[in-house]
Amino acid sequence: MAQNGEFAIIDRFFTHEAFGAWKSKGVGDDCAIIDTAGGRLAVTTDMMSVGTHFLPSALAADIGYKALAVNLSDLAAAGAVPRAFFLSIALPGRDDLWLSGFTEGLMKLARAASCPLLGGDTTRAATVGGAPGPVTISITAMGELPAQMGLTRSGAKPGDDIWVSGNVGGACAALRHRLGEWTLPARLFPAAAARMDRPEARNALGTALLNVASACADISDGLAQDLGHIMERSGVAADILWDAVPKHPSLAALTPERQLQAAMNGGDDYELVFTAPSEKRGLVEQASISSLTPVTRIGRIVELTGPRARLTMHDKAGKEVFMPAGGFDHFGEQEAGQ
Amino acid sequence: MAQNGEFAIIDRFFTHEAFGAWKSKGVGDDCAIIDTAGGRLAVTTDMMSVGTHFLPSALAADIGYKALAVNLSDLAAAGAVPRAFFLSIALPGRDDLWLSGFTEGLMKLARAASCPLLGGDTTRAATVGGAPGPVTISITAMGELPAQMGLTRSGAKPGDDIWVSGNVGGACAALRHRLGEWTLPARLFPAAAARMDRPEARNALGTALLNVASACADISDGLAQDLGHIMERSGVAADILWDAVPKHPSLAALTPERQLQAAMNGGDDYELVFTAPSEKRGLVEQASISSLTPVTRIGRIVELTGPRARLTMHDKAGKEVFMPAGGFDHFGEQEAGQ
Repeated sequence: MAQNGEFAIIDRFFTHEAFGAWKSKGVGDDCAIIDTAGGRLAVTTDMMSVGTHFLPSALAADIGYKALAVNLSDLAAAGAVPRAFFLSIALPGRDDLWLSGFTEGLMKLARAASCPLLGGDTTRAATVGGAPGPVTISITAMGELPAQMGLTRSGAKPGDDIWVSGNVGGACAALRHRLGEWTLPARLFPAAAARMDRPEARNALGTALLNVASACADISDGLAQDLGHIMERSGVAADILWDAVPKHPSLAALTPERQLQAAMNGGDDYELVFTAPSEKRGLVEQASISSLTPVTRIGRIVELTGPRARLTMHDKAGKEVFMPAGGFDHFGEQEAGQ
Repeated sequence: MAQNGEFAIIDRFFTHEAFGAWKSKGVGDDCAIIDTAGGRLAVTTDMMSVGTHFLPSALAADIGYKALAVNLSDLAAAGAVPRAFFLSIALPGRDDLWLSGFTEGLMKLARAASCPLLGGDTTRAATVGGAPGPVTISITAMGELPAQMGLTRSGAKPGDDIWVSGNVGGACAALRHRLGEWTLPARLFPAAAARMDRPEARNALGTALLNVASACADISDGLAQDLGHIMERSGVAADILWDAVPKHPSLAALTPERQLQAAMNGGDDYELVFTAPSEKRGLVEQASISSLTPVTRIGRIVELTGPRARLTMHDKAGKEVFMPAGGFDHFGEQEAGQ
């Protein structure tokens, strides 16, 4: 696995001993789960720049929609009901056409999720060498949880099933196609592009999994890496049946290597990967039905045998499938030369 | 007054009808004041870039300290007790020396305010024309309020006194000195620089003013502009005694015009400007003593006579003092050529 630069920064500089009146499960999960005097909150924050998280050619409405969706997805991973969000945005200048599109996409999802914009900050992006800085968006989303409930990455136990919602790899395939690195057939591209541009946060499923799932994360950095977070935080290993992994239909047009890359490391799918004791399979299926969200069992949690949490994968013939390296890391070694 | 580009953007694009389960006083105050099922929260968010909000030469520790202080100041303006904050930061690359300084300053204030860092996001700044993007920081701070309490900008009434905490103009004088535009004597500069680099959020005063002040704002954009927000939201005018405005000691070294500029338009002081009925002068003084925060009465709220909220100022001889134009506006006309 790649050196986790971003996580190393968080561990070293942004993890501190607890103090203050509000108790939290701390930094390291998709969401902070906080016990206030009046109830339990889930809070998450994400920062996104056009140029890093969005292609410069991305439509303003898609940027607005997705900027909120990725935060709702973090709330989904905690099983929280979205209640409000706050938006800070740095703009290179005033561009009403762009802002119209952005707020249209943003508020469309906000209304659909009953999650209003309750505050924010608008500022001018700093210039770099005389050139206007990038559009930078920071959203903080807040949700509610019942007392003593909430999904985290840390509860997976050996013997638990591993599940994933929807399917994976579509956003990655669309991105690679747009970058000219891979080619999808014209009939398969639009569905993949929709996965990249308008991801669907799985809040209904997350809420339905409270007291059912033992651990949960959303797939933002890639199935392998996000399941890896569950493994690390839970102190377990995992074994996946590659043939069972639900792949986006567009992946059928790719080579086996690229299918692996897209499905396991692609990221940006915003599906949930979660674990549950095998005796709760019926409850998982019930949660799937009540939330109208398909789920697929893809493997199981096993005992940790080595010093590091290890993800193994095999095919239905029992043969080990080689795991492609890396997931997405903003400060990883592969970017050291940038 | 300058065209308020930033506020026009907020009005047009980021103000929407209410929906959802959490009721809020809405966009437009220093803080959102939100009634959740479990209690009343104050939430504020600010985005800051090195190059726009901080000089490129600013020390990392000062940046960390001030980034949190300006958010605590927004909570102070609502009378809320700080409880937690969330940090998103875009970095041009990994720089452990800078990060050490930044987190030292940040966490020093966090501990002093019993306001822990409970979550965040760390990402790489998008490049601009091949050059690394600026450090961009977004902090969302949350505080608690007693049920049905909370200071806003909208409660000022004709006859109310106008008060300001501490003194104003020091941060502006230090900035102008650093930019080489003004010159402060060497013996006066350090105290002004401290006001610019390590502002003191007035949370103890804000909390003590609950049920005493009729309106409150913190001075981030300048006393004239922030009092102007109170006037606009309350539908009133204001009359200020210039001689009563508590000026930072360093202003004594400046020309009268520059004193006016620094005190009325300077901004970045993070003092509180608030109004209270004149029969509550004793309670205001009590709040000042209990919070160890000096306050000064500088004028009074009067009836609105014209179509726009108007701030007038006179000296102790009764002569009108000319108000310098403008406050700070990221998208104002004065920046149209940038």
